[in-house]
Amino acid sequence: MPEKEVVNYEEGRPVFVMNETRTFPIRLSKIRIDDRFFNRYTKLVTKEIIPYQWKVLNDLEPEAEKSRCIANYRIAAGEEEGEFYGFVFQDSDLAKWLEAVAYSLSYEDNPELKKTADEAIALVERAQQKDGYLNTYFTVKEPGKQFTNLREGHELYCAGHMMEAAVAYYEVTGEDKLLKIMEKMADLIVKTFHEDKYKTAAPGHQEIEIGLVKMYRVTKKKEYLDMAKAFIDRRGTEPNYLVHEHEDPGWTDVFHNPDPFFPDYSQCDEPVRQQKTARGHAVREVYMLCAMADLAFYYRDEELFDACETLYDDIVNRQMYLTGGIGSSGLYERFTVDYDLPNDRNYSETCASIGLALFCRRMAEITGDTKYIETMETALYNTVLSGIGLDGKSFFYVNPMEVEPSHCLPHSSLQHVKSVRQKWFGCACCPPNIARTLASLGEYVCFTKENEVYLNLFLGCSFSVEFEGKKVDFTVETDMPYRGRTRIHVNNPENANGTLFLRIPSYAKKAELTDGENVVTLNPQKGYQKIEIKEKEHDLSLQFKMPAEYIYADPNVSANVGRVAVKKGPLVYCMEEADNGTGLSRFFVDTRISIVEDYDEDLFGGTMVITLAGEKLMPYEEEGSLYRTEMPRRKNAEARLIPYCLWGNRRTGEMLVWIRTNF
Amino acid sequence: MPEKEVVNYEEGRPVFVMNETRTFPIRLSKIRIDDRFFNRYTKLVTKEIIPYQWKVLNDLEPEAEKSRCIANYRIAAGEEEGEFYGFVFQDSDLAKWLEAVAYSLSYEDNPELKKTADEAIALVERAQQKDGYLNTYFTVKEPGKQFTNLREGHELYCAGHMMEAAVAYYEVTGEDKLLKIMEKMADLIVKTFHEDKYKTAAPGHQEIEIGLVKMYRVTKKKEYLDMAKAFIDRRGTEPNYLVHEHEDPGWTDVFHNPDPFFPDYSQCDEPVRQQKTARGHAVREVYMLCAMADLAFYYRDEELFDACETLYDDIVNRQMYLTGGIGSSGLYERFTVDYDLPNDRNYSETCASIGLALFCRRMAEITGDTKYIETMETALYNTVLSGIGLDGKSFFYVNPMEVEPSHCLPHSSLQHVKSVRQKWFGCACCPPNIARTLASLGEYVCFTKENEVYLNLFLGCSFSVEFEGKKVDFTVETDMPYRGRTRIHVNNPENANGTLFLRIPSYAKKAELTDGENVVTLNPQKGYQKIEIKEKEHDLSLQFKMPAEYIYADPNVSANVGRVAVKKGPLVYCMEEADNGTGLSRFFVDTRISIVEDYDEDLFGGTMVITLAGEKLMPYEEEGSLYRTEMPRRKNAEARLIPYCLWGNRRTGEMLVWIRTNF
Repeated sequence: MPEKEVVNYEEGRPVFVMNETRTFPIRLSKIRIDDRFFNRYTKLVTKEIIPYQWKVLNDLEPEAEKSRCIANYRIAAGEEEGEFYGFVFQDSDLAKWLEAVAYSLSYEDNPELKKTADEAIALVERAQQKDGYLNTYFTVKEPGKQFTNLREGHELYCAGHMMEAAVAYYEVTGEDKLLKIMEKMADLIVKTFHEDKYKTAAPGHQEIEIGLVKMYRVTKKKEYLDMAKAFIDRRGTEPNYLVHEHEDPGWTDVFHNPDPFFPDYSQCDEPVRQQKTARGHAVREVYMLCAMADLAFYYRDEELFDACETLYDDIVNRQMYLTGGIGSSGLYERFTVDYDLPNDRNYSETCASIGLALFCRRMAEITGDTKYIETMETALYNTVLSGIGLDGKSFFYVNPMEVEPSHCLPHSSLQHVKSVRQKWFGCACCPPNIARTLASLGEYVCFTKENEVYLNLFLGCSFSVEFEGKKVDFTVETDMPYRGRTRIHVNNPENANGTLFLRIPSYAKKAELTDGENVVTLNPQKGYQKIEIKEKEHDLSLQFKMPAEYIYADPNVSANVGRVAVKKGPLVYCMEEADNGTGLSRFFVDTRISIVEDYDEDLFGGTMVITLAGEKLMPYEEEGSLYRTEMPRRKNAEARLIPYCLWGNRRTGEMLVWIRTNF
Repeated sequence: MPEKEVVNYEEGRPVFVMNETRTFPIRLSKIRIDDRFFNRYTKLVTKEIIPYQWKVLNDLEPEAEKSRCIANYRIAAGEEEGEFYGFVFQDSDLAKWLEAVAYSLSYEDNPELKKTADEAIALVERAQQKDGYLNTYFTVKEPGKQFTNLREGHELYCAGHMMEAAVAYYEVTGEDKLLKIMEKMADLIVKTFHEDKYKTAAPGHQEIEIGLVKMYRVTKKKEYLDMAKAFIDRRGTEPNYLVHEHEDPGWTDVFHNPDPFFPDYSQCDEPVRQQKTARGHAVREVYMLCAMADLAFYYRDEELFDACETLYDDIVNRQMYLTGGIGSSGLYERFTVDYDLPNDRNYSETCASIGLALFCRRMAEITGDTKYIETMETALYNTVLSGIGLDGKSFFYVNPMEVEPSHCLPHSSLQHVKSVRQKWFGCACCPPNIARTLASLGEYVCFTKENEVYLNLFLGCSFSVEFEGKKVDFTVETDMPYRGRTRIHVNNPENANGTLFLRIPSYAKKAELTDGENVVTLNPQKGYQKIEIKEKEHDLSLQFKMPAEYIYADPNVSANVGRVAVKKGPLVYCMEEADNGTGLSRFFVDTRISIVEDYDEDLFGGTMVITLAGEKLMPYEEEGSLYRTEMPRRKNAEARLIPYCLWGNRRTGEMLVWIRTNF
C-alpha cells in the first residue's frame, strides 16, 4: 500500500507538505447535522431538492427547462423511441443525483427514495452496452463514434460522475450493483486508453480521474489509480492528443463551435506539473486539482504535490473572489489572469466553487493544514450556498459580486448573469452538484484518522468515532457563523485515548478554550489545536470574538480599488435593494464608523444583519446632461447588509458586495 | 420641391425644431483645411491611408488581414477564378474607399489615384449583373439567392455605401459612371421592394436609406426618396418581414449563428416612430437615424423628427460615453439600457461614432442648433480619431474607456478589446469609414445656406462662399483645440451682404468677439453668434477660456461613481502607462488641487498635456493574501494625461479615462 510510505523532504521545501498518512472524511453514517444556520439548506435535501430534481430529470416539472435525462437512458436501453435530447453531458445529472441520494440515505432512512434510486440504477445497467460502455449521447445519437471526441464528448466526464455515485451508493448501502456497472466501464476505459491509438489521450473535461481514484479506494484495483495518474501525466505533453485529435478523419464535431479549440481552456497547453497559473475552464481546473492531490498522496509524488500547491496559491492569492468564486470570465467560464476580478461580469460558477471546496478538502486531508479548510469554508458558505434558493428549487449558476438587474440584458455582455435564481438550466450541472454537496456536508465537517478526529467546521452536529477501537461520541453546539461560541461534549464511556484536533480559525480573535474547568493554552499547529481525549466526559468550550470587519482587496485588483467589503467570520456580506433601495453603487461607507451587528429573528428564519454608515450620492435634481462639471451632492446614509449566500431570496433587485468608500 | 415647404408648428412642441429650410455642408472643393491639430490626420489621407487601404483591398499588404475585396469583384465579373472570401459585406470596403478617394480629389489633384479609382469603378460595372444587381457575395457564392436574407445579407447595406460613393464621385469629378451603375441598382431595388413579396420588407442593416436619399438629391428621382421612407416606415410594423423572413423556404442562412435573431438588434421590434430608446446594434441605430433626419426634413414629417429627437436625447443623455462612444455591450456591438456604461468591456465602435457624427450633422443642418454640433465634435475629436493611429495604418475598432492589456485575453469576456491598434480587420468596416470621414472633414466644419455660412468647428482652414452671388473668402486661424483663440479674416471685395453664424461652444468661458476694433455683444441663438458681413474686410477675433475641467458622470452611471474625467474643450483626456507607469487604477486625484496644463512640443508633434495631483495606492509590500483587513498604504503622486484620441501611439500599456477620486 503506498498510503503510508514515508518520504523525507529536502530542506528548502515548503513548510506545509503532505503528511505521511492522511485523514479521510468521516463516514456520513457517523455524523448527524442539526444546525441553526445550515438546517435551512440540509433539511431541504430530502424534502425538496432530491424529489424536485428527480421530477426534473423525468420532465415532470413544468416550469423547469426540459431535461430528458431519464428519457435518454430509456432510449439508450431500447425501451423508448426518440432522439437524444440535451447537452452531451446530460447523463451526469443522474449521476450527481444518485450520489446525492446515496449520501442522504446514510443519515435518513427512505425506502421509497431508495427504491426509486435502485430503479434508476437498473435503468443505467440496461442502458450500458455489452462491452461496458455507458453514455446515452453516443449510444443514441452517435453510435460507433464513442471516444472520437475527447475534447467535447464528455463520456469520461459522465463516467467519472457515475463512478462517484457508484462508490457513494456502495459505501452507504453496501450494494454493489452500480459499482459493478462502473467497474465494467472502468475496465473498458483502462483497456481502451492503453491502446496504441489512445496511448497519449487525456479527457477534455477532467472528472474521470476523481472517479477512478474513488473506484480504486473501494475496489483496490491499482489499474484504476494508474489510469487516473496516466490521464493527469499525459495532459499537455507531446504528442498532444487533445490538440491534434480533430485531425483524425473519424473525429466527430459535437459542439460545432466556430471558435477553434484553445488548449489552455482544457489545461492541456503544457504538462500539468509545469503549470504555474490556474487557467481555462474553472471547473476543469479544480476537478483536475482534486485528482492531482489524491494522486500526489497515493504515489508520494512530490512534484505533483508541488503543482497542487503552486496552483492553489495562484487561485487563492491572485484569482479568487472574496466569496470563494473562481472563473472571472463569462465567456468560456474561465480563469483569466492574475488580479483580473471584475465584479459584475464574472462567472464564478457554483460548480467551480464546489470543485474548489473538494480540492481544498483533499489538500487538508493530506497536509493537516487548516489553511485549506479556510478556503473550503469560504467557498461553501458563500458561493456554494448562494447557488441555491431558500426554496431548494431555484439556482444560480453564475455568482456575481454585484448586480444591476436591468444590465443583465439577453444578447449582451452580461447575458450570462441572472438577477433571479432559475428553476433549472438546459445545462444543469450546478443544481445536482449542490444537492450532492449539501447531502455530504458531514464529510467537510469532520476528518478522521487512527485515534484522531479533526473538527473543521463549526456546525451543530453529533458524530462518533473510534479511539482504540472504542466508540467515542461528540456533540457540538454552536452559535456560529454569527457568534464565536462553540461547546463540544465528549462522551467516552470506556476512557479511550485519542486526540481531537479542533480548528481555530484565522478570523477568531481572543480565542479561549476550556476543557471542563481548565483553560487550555492555545498552541494550534497548522491551525488545529490538539486536545487529548481520555476522560469519560469532556466539556470543551471554545469562545472567540468574530466581529464583522472591513476587507480590502489587493491593490492590484483594479476593480476593487476604493472599495471595501464586509466579512464576518466565514460569511461575506452584501447590500441588497430590498433593504437599501436602488443605487447601491452610490453609497460610500465611512470606514471610521463602527460596524453595527444585529440579529434579525424574522429575516430568512433568523440572520445577522449589518449596518454601515456613510454617504450616498444623490441623483441629479434636474434631468439633462449625462456629464457635468458640478460634483453630485451627497447626503448621510446608512447601508444594511445581509449574508451574500442569502441574496436573491426576496424581490429582484440590485446587489453589491464591494462597497465604495472615500474615507 | 418639398425642401422649402412651410409648416406651422403647434404650441407645446419642442423648442428646437426643424427650420423651414436647411443648411448643407459646404462643398469640399470650396474648403481647404490646414490645421495644426488635424494635419497629423488629414495629411495622412492621401499620403498613407488611401494608398494603404488600396493595397489591403488588393491583398498586397502582407501584415494586414486578408481582404480579397477586389478579388471578389473580379470573380463576380468573371475575370478571375475562385471562391468568394470574407464577410458578406466585404463589398462595402471598396465603396467606402471610393467615397474617400472622391472627397480627397476635391482638394488634391491626383491623376494617378483617379485612374486607379476609375479602373475600380469599371470593375464594379463589370461585376454588376444585367438586371442592375450588384453584390459579389450573392453573385459568386449564392447565385439565385439575392434578397433572400435581408437580416444578414447586407446587399442593401453594400448598395447604400456604393451609392454614397457614387454621389461623392459625381459631385467631385462631375463623372457619372458610378452614379449610373448605382441608378441601375437603385431602380432594381425600387422595383423589387414594391413587389408583393417584399411589400413590407426592410433591410437588416440600415444604410441603403442614406444612399437612396443622396441619390435622390443628385438625380431628383423622387422614387428613391420614397423607397428610403418606405424602408423606415416598414421597420418594426406588422407583418414584420425581418422577424418572419426565415420562415420562407427560400431563406438562406448567412451567418449560421446558433443564437436566434432578436428584433431589437435591428431596431425592428416596434415601429421606429414609437421607439423611445436607442437599442440594438449601434451602427444600425445611428445610420437609421441619419436617414430618419433627412426624411423628416424632406417630408416635413414632424412625427419622424420627434423620433429623431427622442432617440438623440436617449443616446446623449443616457447611453453615450464621454468620448462620444456608443454601444456599451461587446457582445453584438450594441446599446444596452440607460446608464449602463461600463468602462472596460464596452464596444464603442469607431463606425458607430462616425454614424453618430453623421446623424448629428444632419440634425444641425435641419435645426441650426449647435447642441448637435457639440455631440458631433465630441464623437469626431475623441472616438473617431482614437480609431486611427498616427501612422495612418493601424486602427481601433473598439474604443474602451480603460484598458489593462493583460485582461484583454483571447477567448475571454474582454477578447474584443485590443490594447494595440490592429493593421486591418477581417471585418474591416472601420478603417475605410475613418478614411472617408477624414477626407470629408470640411463638411463637418462649415454649412452653407443662401447668403449664410455656419462655422461649426474650430480648425485652421480657408473657404469661400457666395453672398448675393459674389464670392467671399474666409480664412480661419486658430489655436484650438488647446487654446480658445480664433481669428477669422473675411475678404469680401464686392461688399456682398451675408451672415456668418459662428458657433460659440458651450465650453467657452468668458468669450469675447471683436469685429475689427468693435467688441460684438454676444447673443448666440442655438449656439450660433450671428455676424453680418458687409464690409470689404472683416477681421474677427474670438477668444475664450477653455480650461481643462473635472467632469462627473450622472450618478446613475454606477461605473463612474467616485470617479472623475478630465475634459478640455472638445478633448477628453486619459492616463497612459507610458507616462504614469502601471497601476493607473490605483491613482486617486485630489480635485481640490488645480489642474496644470502644459504644451509639450515634442509629444506626438505637439500636444497639451495635463498634470493632476493626488495619491496612489501602493501595492502590498509582502506577497500573500488577496484580501486583508489592513487598508493599503497611499503616497502622494501625480498623474499625467494626454488627449484620449492619441492613446495607444506609444508602447502597449494601460489606459484610463475615469480616474478615481476620494476627495
